Amino acid sequence: MNIVPETATNQAAPLSASLLKNIHAYWRAANYLSVGQLYLRDNPLLKKPLKLEHIKNMLLGHWGTTPGQNFIYTHLNRTIKQHDLDMIYISGPGHGGPAVVAGTYLEGTYSEVYPAITADEDGLKKLFTQFSYPGGISSHASPQTPGSIHEGGELGYSLSHAFGAVLDNPKLIVACVVGDGEAETGPLATAWHSNKFLNPLTDGTVLPILHLNGYKISNPTVLARITHEELEQLFRGYGWNPIFVEGDDPMVMHQLMAAALDEAITQIQAIKQRADNNDLARPRWPMIILRSPKGWTGPKTVDGQQIEGTFRSHQVPISVSASAPAEHLQQLESWMKSYHPEELFDNNGTLKAELTDLVPKGNRRMGANPQANGGLLMHDLRIPEFRDYMVDVKDHGITGEGDVHVSGRFLRDLIKLNPDNFRIFGPDETVSNRLEEVFAVTDRQWNAGIKEHDEFLAPAGRVMEMLSEHQCEGWLEGYLLTGRHGLFNCYEAFIHIVDSMFNQHAKWLKMTLEIPWRRKIASLNILLTSTVWRQDHNGFTHQDPGFIDHVINKKSEIVRVYLAPDSNCLLSIMDHCLRSRHYVNVIIAGKHPSPQWLNMEEAVDHCTRGIGIWDWASNDQDCETDLVMACSGDVPTLETLAAVAILREHLPELKIRVINVVDLLKLERQVDHPHGLNDKDFDSLFTTNKPVIFAFHGYPWLIHRLTYNRTNNHNIHVRGYKEEGTITTSFDMTVLNEMDRFHLVMDAIDRLPQTGSRGTYLKQSLQDKLTQHKEYIDLNGEDMPEIRNWKWQQ
Amino acid sequence: MNIVPETATNQAAPLSASLLKNIHAYWRAANYLSVGQLYLRDNPLLKKPLKLEHIKNMLLGHWGTTPGQNFIYTHLNRTIKQHDLDMIYISGPGHGGPAVVAGTYLEGTYSEVYPAITADEDGLKKLFTQFSYPGGISSHASPQTPGSIHEGGELGYSLSHAFGAVLDNPKLIVACVVGDGEAETGPLATAWHSNKFLNPLTDGTVLPILHLNGYKISNPTVLARITHEELEQLFRGYGWNPIFVEGDDPMVMHQLMAAALDEAITQIQAIKQRADNNDLARPRWPMIILRSPKGWTGPKTVDGQQIEGTFRSHQVPISVSASAPAEHLQQLESWMKSYHPEELFDNNGTLKAELTDLVPKGNRRMGANPQANGGLLMHDLRIPEFRDYMVDVKDHGITGEGDVHVSGRFLRDLIKLNPDNFRIFGPDETVSNRLEEVFAVTDRQWNAGIKEHDEFLAPAGRVMEMLSEHQCEGWLEGYLLTGRHGLFNCYEAFIHIVDSMFNQHAKWLKMTLEIPWRRKIASLNILLTSTVWRQDHNGFTHQDPGFIDHVINKKSEIVRVYLAPDSNCLLSIMDHCLRSRHYVNVIIAGKHPSPQWLNMEEAVDHCTRGIGIWDWASNDQDCETDLVMACSGDVPTLETLAAVAILREHLPELKIRVINVVDLLKLERQVDHPHGLNDKDFDSLFTTNKPVIFAFHGYPWLIHRLTYNRTNNHNIHVRGYKEEGTITTSFDMTVLNEMDRFHLVMDAIDRLPQTGSRGTYLKQSLQDKLTQHKEYIDLNGEDMPEIRNWKWQQ
Repeated sequence: MNIVPETATNQAAPLSASLLKNIHAYWRAANYLSVGQLYLRDNPLLKKPLKLEHIKNMLLGHWGTTPGQNFIYTHLNRTIKQHDLDMIYISGPGHGGPAVVAGTYLEGTYSEVYPAITADEDGLKKLFTQFSYPGGISSHASPQTPGSIHEGGELGYSLSHAFGAVLDNPKLIVACVVGDGEAETGPLATAWHSNKFLNPLTDGTVLPILHLNGYKISNPTVLARITHEELEQLFRGYGWNPIFVEGDDPMVMHQLMAAALDEAITQIQAIKQRADNNDLARPRWPMIILRSPKGWTGPKTVDGQQIEGTFRSHQVPISVSASAPAEHLQQLESWMKSYHPEELFDNNGTLKAELTDLVPKGNRRMGANPQANGGLLMHDLRIPEFRDYMVDVKDHGITGEGDVHVSGRFLRDLIKLNPDNFRIFGPDETVSNRLEEVFAVTDRQWNAGIKEHDEFLAPAGRVMEMLSEHQCEGWLEGYLLTGRHGLFNCYEAFIHIVDSMFNQHAKWLKMTLEIPWRRKIASLNILLTSTVWRQDHNGFTHQDPGFIDHVINKKSEIVRVYLAPDSNCLLSIMDHCLRSRHYVNVIIAGKHPSPQWLNMEEAVDHCTRGIGIWDWASNDQDCETDLVMACSGDVPTLETLAAVAILREHLPELKIRVINVVDLLKLERQVDHPHGLNDKDFDSLFTTNKPVIFAFHGYPWLIHRLTYNRTNNHNIHVRGYKEEGTITTSFDMTVLNEMDRFHLVMDAIDRLPQTGSRGTYLKQSLQDKLTQHKEYIDLNGEDMPEIRNWKWQQ
Repeated sequence: MNIVPETATNQAAPLSASLLKNIHAYWRAANYLSVGQLYLRDNPLLKKPLKLEHIKNMLLGHWGTTPGQNFIYTHLNRTIKQHDLDMIYISGPGHGGPAVVAGTYLEGTYSEVYPAITADEDGLKKLFTQFSYPGGISSHASPQTPGSIHEGGELGYSLSHAFGAVLDNPKLIVACVVGDGEAETGPLATAWHSNKFLNPLTDGTVLPILHLNGYKISNPTVLARITHEELEQLFRGYGWNPIFVEGDDPMVMHQLMAAALDEAITQIQAIKQRADNNDLARPRWPMIILRSPKGWTGPKTVDGQQIEGTFRSHQVPISVSASAPAEHLQQLESWMKSYHPEELFDNNGTLKAELTDLVPKGNRRMGANPQANGGLLMHDLRIPEFRDYMVDVKDHGITGEGDVHVSGRFLRDLIKLNPDNFRIFGPDETVSNRLEEVFAVTDRQWNAGIKEHDEFLAPAGRVMEMLSEHQCEGWLEGYLLTGRHGLFNCYEAFIHIVDSMFNQHAKWLKMTLEIPWRRKIASLNILLTSTVWRQDHNGFTHQDPGFIDHVINKKSEIVRVYLAPDSNCLLSIMDHCLRSRHYVNVIIAGKHPSPQWLNMEEAVDHCTRGIGIWDWASNDQDCETDLVMACSGDVPTLETLAAVAILREHLPELKIRVINVVDLLKLERQVDHPHGLNDKDFDSLFTTNKPVIFAFHGYPWLIHRLTYNRTNNHNIHVRGYKEEGTITTSFDMTVLNEMDRFHLVMDAIDRLPQTGSRGTYLKQSLQDKLTQHKEYIDLNGEDMPEIRNWKWQQ
């Protein structure tokens, strides 16, 4: 492994006296605007003596991280200008909102997207008032912030987003500020290892800036309280080359920070140069460790307690209100005046020209960089004709090779057509999930050493695999947010690991829909396989179909859920999802050989409608239906059709309708979800008064939740997973949860008194079958031949 | 910081020739049993030539990690005996089931808890057959495995469990094997920092053994492919003292491993000695990095492909079946015979005496250590009388100081009474969540340096705070699993971070209920506050009440959900939960000053029933009810009562019943949850035909899910959080989601045609109020005085 020489160009004082003066002034301006946002609703330039009437009624917001981030943003501007960099900024620490707003306001981008927030006194007043104000903007970087692809609500995902953003973006540098509190989270702690997955030639650069300001809400941070030696070892162990900037004297710190950034850029350029010369060995990328006081330049003490440099500066450091001590107002005024606004803004409230000169131009401004509004840059995927990959279903029920496996060929060719615009992410499960066809045309991207017996590893590849669902999700989010496309494949049970990341992304999508200057991005596609019903071999710990329940709590404009009954349907769903925009699409499909029900034409028609009667399996044509057998998901569909076959053989007079649901949210009312059926259509499918036996892939009560207000809801009887599982056979999984063909038939008979004694007799014989089944697998460790070899007979 | 000298006692060859011989034989025995579990259903001692009929029909399981874990387990036995250690074993890598089963079988504990699995040929046959067999045991360490407190299903939590186990367990050493795949997960990556939270005097020792076998399912691992220098830096940076054991020659490796373990124990004893002398400075604890081939001692090549030392040894390395190549059977036989079972077991299949001598005695055996069956050791908490902390509610609706805050005093005294048996865990939110009263009697435990302005930090303390929900949850789980008690307090929205950990723990609890020799443990108590309705200041990203939805998918025997309407109810709920066993209790409560409804007697009565009519707020006594106003959660209760006040003022002829739900699962049917109301009781509360307006803390459809099959379900109209939020006032949060008092009244009127024109008029005036409300907060940034100052009038 080559390592960039660590000495290089580090000069003690790279800033000239006049540049130093201006940079310091610019930082003061940003700090001034930050304090203004926390406190003021009037008198933004302090032209008048500060009075309580100028102060907001409720003081909310976070000061602690803000001056440090202003410091970083100011210096990044200088570095961008000096080196003509294509750079965006990610604000990892929770609540640095005032800093990113100040930074983008000073550079002019804020006023461009929000024309009411002008670069004058009136604009300043509005800028201050809206912050942490009802209906206004939040205390963290948010979708409303120009230049942001990362929301500082929950912590832990900044570095993952940064790495996702630079994939296939060779010129881009993401300056990613990581908070030392955030750095304690698990996802962030493993994200440092992302450097083993980067290609220095075809990907861009993440420049992490670990901001050690020492404290969280009311505790010190771990990384701020270990020795310098340990800290350096830790980051060198993670494979980085840390450059330290430590202190609290602004004039010294400006020179140190400028030198550190120049040094980092020099190292990055050297790495890029080597990559251009085809040396792709994993480099030791630079990072900056900035140790500065929490609440830097804020009040030193208030009411006799130390504020600057302690956890007490985390939020609003001085309470100012009618009930607070009177001197607090004076302290606030002194604090704000310590920045000397009169030197920074002209009488109109406009930033002075010598400071404006420090700002990069046009799209080089971090708030204006189109990378942070990925929809602007997004190209449509070139998608192969999915029908070309179809399974030739001559007879309903022929055995396929595994639905996901078939889609693997489609994805393989998709990758060929989109060599720099589409990636697959997964926690070392892409082969296990039967997508191995993609490795015919690409590899797993991996930069941590390749050995003789490894498979499908290369410095560049379209598949990203790390055993961290957090990383997979975070990388993909960053990739999408910067205008590209992708797919996350995951074992169904373990997708819950990213429940909270999904939440934050879904909330981001909902909010960006409401912001006119934000462009739609590609959907986040999550392919769940190795599902509950086929985790018989891994057992109870690997069984959980509840991600759907979690997902559909989010806004109906954002979430879609598809359950593929077979390979042709999965192809149609995949095609649809890859073309869609600004959704989270959850696709659930099987990877094992299983029956194929629909030919391609039928599949397209069925998936387009999302729900429908399978006429070829039904016998209620032209007469009154006695029973609806509904199903959603591959295994439930199999068990339902097997149950229908039993019923039609033994009780042929019953008129049965078979319904399959691909698009789960068709079940919701139209008023609740845009895909929802209106009541008339729902009733015409499910009848208004006949028994419905519904075999569902997930937890059964989800179907009740979706249908509780339908006319026939009290007749809908649902079977699904109810947390019964162990190591067993795949069919026995359905028996344990009473969703097998035999239970479904018995459920139907219980609701069909007209079946009389023949129904009772059939039930008894199925009970015997279940006993037989148990005995057979106990003895043989596999299912009875009549189960294993069952086929639908037309 | 003091650092243990790193030279110490490391001898090149601590094992005598005869001990070396026996240890190697013992390891071979464990490996032999492991291969037997993967393949055989008969002929366990290979007394007959191996035939297909001796092989299981389905070959499932994982070989890759197993020989390495057998190696570790064997050497730990030697170390326990030599140093008389109190040690348990945590198997972190996913699927090391065959190893822990072999280890506990050889030491005799397996046969003690499963008497049918005898220490002879018949027992071996059963042992082999049950593995990865329908109804049998899984391929990872599981609740069925004696000595295990950690299930190897999902990855990432082994170290957190280990640290939780050693808290307040000063003599205990947890040998925690961490897989190099597992080490890529976020939770594991931050768990290494747990050493900053350990007290060397009052807590025990975690001895991590990082098992670098190089591969995951089909990829290499990150930690196995970085340089030795980086690896050492990383772990020294994490604050550990790594001892390396690397190689593949068993005879060399035995000596290296024995020396490494002796060295580690020497270092641990020195640290403990220093702590006894009152030197509590954070020590550099030892850890072992074991680099050994994946699938060590297994087949070198199969079908021309390298197996040992590659990812191909991850699962079953040789396929043996009627359809597999015939020579595979022969290869398997040679492989198994390479361990020379005839040297290890006597003719009856019993382990030979000279090998049995290597096993620790009685409870020193890792499979028999009662720490791993925590219910055996658990003592009841000493719980203060919760009524002593009551709020004196003289009038319904007086303003309290914050419900959680009141419980803080109860917890403070609980801590005083249980100085080594109870801990509070939280991600730096204990003060923010208003539990700061506990710091009157304890501190946050912290061993990473304390500075002048820090608060409530000490080397020993009952509160564990790290900014990682994963760590908090994992530590608490480990603490409970070893027989202690605790509480996790967390912002409601971010508890989703541990959704998947909750899943695994709930599954563990369900399975252990079914295992006779497992004892019940204390419940996992999760206190959620900073809830959705009071995250008006942090905004949309901090709003998600969906953890309940997630939780109630798990088995009804395990999960409980309580929503406290006020302080006295919360006290009663806390007391109940702390006494309960083997549940996950989710408690949702407010931290802000809010109305207090019930005096202590009423609260106890209400919480005991879990659901009930609030007679003092209702006016339907002795007459037919017109309207049911139901509520669950503190803010919904407030809005409901304010709505009732409006209705009773303006439409006094309406007969209104107010129902409050504390125990959410009362709403489920009795057949679905043990707490569920029977239909008669439900109907008598909610009527069979009157409109019900239900204001719910969480997503509204959850109530529909719980009540879809109740008689009156079609009349239940639910308001709750529907993903509408921004920075605003707390009352406006309810308006945005239409759960405010005005919307509730309008909803009621819509369902009460008898209110006629007076109802219409009232609706119109409330619409005007809503407009007025919006205008007021836009202007003032706070709620109208009539909202802020509203009080229930009796």
